[in-house]
Amino acid sequence: MSQPPPQERSATVSFTQAELDYLATQPLGRLATSQPDGTLQVSPVGFRYNAETGTIDIGGHNMAASRKFRNVAANGRVAFVIDDIVSTSPWRVRCLEIRGTAEALADGAGQLAGPTIRVHPRRIISFGLQPGDVDREPHTLKADIRNV
Amino acid sequence: MSQPPPQERSATVSFTQAELDYLATQPLGRLATSQPDGTLQVSPVGFRYNAETGTIDIGGHNMAASRKFRNVAANGRVAFVIDDIVSTSPWRVRCLEIRGTAEALADGAGQLAGPTIRVHPRRIISFGLQPGDVDREPHTLKADIRNV
Repeated sequence: MSQPPPQERSATVSFTQAELDYLATQPLGRLATSQPDGTLQVSPVGFRYNAETGTIDIGGHNMAASRKFRNVAANGRVAFVIDDIVSTSPWRVRCLEIRGTAEALADGAGQLAGPTIRVHPRRIISFGLQPGDVDREPHTLKADIRNV
Repeated sequence: MSQPPPQERSATVSFTQAELDYLATQPLGRLATSQPDGTLQVSPVGFRYNAETGTIDIGGHNMAASRKFRNVAANGRVAFVIDDIVSTSPWRVRCLEIRGTAEALADGAGQLAGPTIRVHPRRIISFGLQPGDVDREPHTLKADIRNV
């Protein structure tokens, strides 16, 4: 196997392998943005992890006209989360939250042809994603929080 | 059957019956908050619709120590969303987004005993929740958006 080019390797270092695996399993994320007047907005979005740039790329129907796209163009503030319920008894939720900055790309990006929101991670918070976590008592789990 | 007291009836007018039914089906919502420096945060939360107050009440383990609770205490800015995937072919997502203001209640509220975030809806955006929507072409659906 050949080595990936250096820029790919450094771009993907932000996420652990467990986080990358988890990103690949979830069909829907939720993106929070901030309107110019400071009120918040949050909505479900399809997404792709872009291994070349180390970003979360978000496309979708009518993206350019959407409130979230205009919010990102205005101030670049975003938070993004994926999660799922592992069990309801005990109540066990896993999640991966990404706080960062984003670009509103009018001409598409990577594998996405249309207007795209590209999220650059600055802080990653993952919870319940370590291999042994599912066997631990939920209230004893600690989030893995780090700046990237 | 006796009539509910007037304050209950007026509090619940914010949501349509279809939206109330949908709130009852979803086990997890996502709450976006804003940090004092303006960066955003979003995370999965359990919630209850409180019919007496017309609010979304959010509790949880270690709520009072959480970043979201402190953010709400600082500025009251929130957005909340529930969603699900109805089908993947065609790609069909339903959602109910609530933008508004929130209180950080240290002593609990309604059926929740511990510290609680109480979301007061100001703007409601629902998508795909009307009875006939599942039979319509996804790209022809229009969001139902209103201030409350």
